[in-house]
Amino acid sequence: MEETPPFLTAPEDTRGEIMGATYRALCRHGYSGITVQRIAEEFEKSKSLLYHHYDDKDELLLAFLDYMLEEFEETVAACDADGPAEQFDAMLDQLLVGSGPPAAEQFIAAMVELRAQAAHDERYREQFSHHDGALHDRLVAVTEAGIEAGCFRDVDADRVATFLLTLVVGAMTRRATLENSAGATVREEVESYVDRRLRVEGGDE
Amino acid sequence: MEETPPFLTAPEDTRGEIMGATYRALCRHGYSGITVQRIAEEFEKSKSLLYHHYDDKDELLLAFLDYMLEEFEETVAACDADGPAEQFDAMLDQLLVGSGPPAAEQFIAAMVELRAQAAHDERYREQFSHHDGALHDRLVAVTEAGIEAGCFRDVDADRVATFLLTLVVGAMTRRATLENSAGATVREEVESYVDRRLRVEGGDE
Repeated sequence: MEETPPFLTAPEDTRGEIMGATYRALCRHGYSGITVQRIAEEFEKSKSLLYHHYDDKDELLLAFLDYMLEEFEETVAACDADGPAEQFDAMLDQLLVGSGPPAAEQFIAAMVELRAQAAHDERYREQFSHHDGALHDRLVAVTEAGIEAGCFRDVDADRVATFLLTLVVGAMTRRATLENSAGATVREEVESYVDRRLRVEGGDE
Repeated sequence: MEETPPFLTAPEDTRGEIMGATYRALCRHGYSGITVQRIAEEFEKSKSLLYHHYDDKDELLLAFLDYMLEEFEETVAACDADGPAEQFDAMLDQLLVGSGPPAAEQFIAAMVELRAQAAHDERYREQFSHHDGALHDRLVAVTEAGIEAGCFRDVDADRVATFLLTLVVGAMTRRATLENSAGATVREEVESYVDRRLRVEGGDE
């Protein structure tokens, strides 16, 4: 996971600026401490503009999740030039947080808190289901392209994608909630799983 | 994951009864809706007894997590009679929630919400680190016993345990936060990972 994504530091329009302010407020206060007022404090334009667009903090946070997903999909789509095996590796690098910079910690913590809202709030559940579904479809497509190109074995791409996304959610949650989540160890073992399970050249460890 | 654990339905002492009341209140209201008052409503003895022991809801919930861990460790220790490969399978069955009964849903949702508190509350972070550490040590011990007994390959037990516990956290979080978490698919792929990675008899799929 990268440092602050560029679309949040150099937004292109008002919506982007509101999303950047939401990102900074989330990093600073977490879900438990966030309010529309605190997001407004991070926003450089008229506060009333922000209040005009969003009624409550959850509406704003759901819009933020939606925006993050759109941008993530664009980032992934932008590396279409490489082969499927390289695209697959790039996606895993982006999704697995084990080796990210410390600066990302607070954002990851906020995302884990946001996700936990889905345990009792239908709107968050829908949003995360949509988000995970899009990532899943993308991983399946890249895996199938790899099978087609002969660099991956003929695996059940749906099953492999579900397994990998479960690891991604687990690594992110552990990173935000444990003193030592051993993220680098997880990344190594994912690599060794992918080698054994997918890559045609294979090899032990 | 089993139905309501027996130690919560037939508690042996006052502490056990308070923990049973906490369990029922968590299932009914979730973390976001729980209060000491609501736990007291589930408690059959004197409310003042409960207020006497616990000052606030987080103190009570942290004691509850501690109690769950103790009981889980006793359950795992109780199946010592079988060989290491059987113990390993039993642990995975207990930890992976993919195939649990619908009755467990609300409790899993509450556990996911509790864990998310660790993203901003040091006391929860310590508790979950202790919890995950104990599970990790147990998984490593069973894996090493399996290697010793010749039924598992000579793997890095620490790395395998970290990987599997990441899957456990991911499966639990996905189950509580997605419309369809495909838990059964995860369980199948874990089985196939364990076959490839650990079992000496091996075999493809």
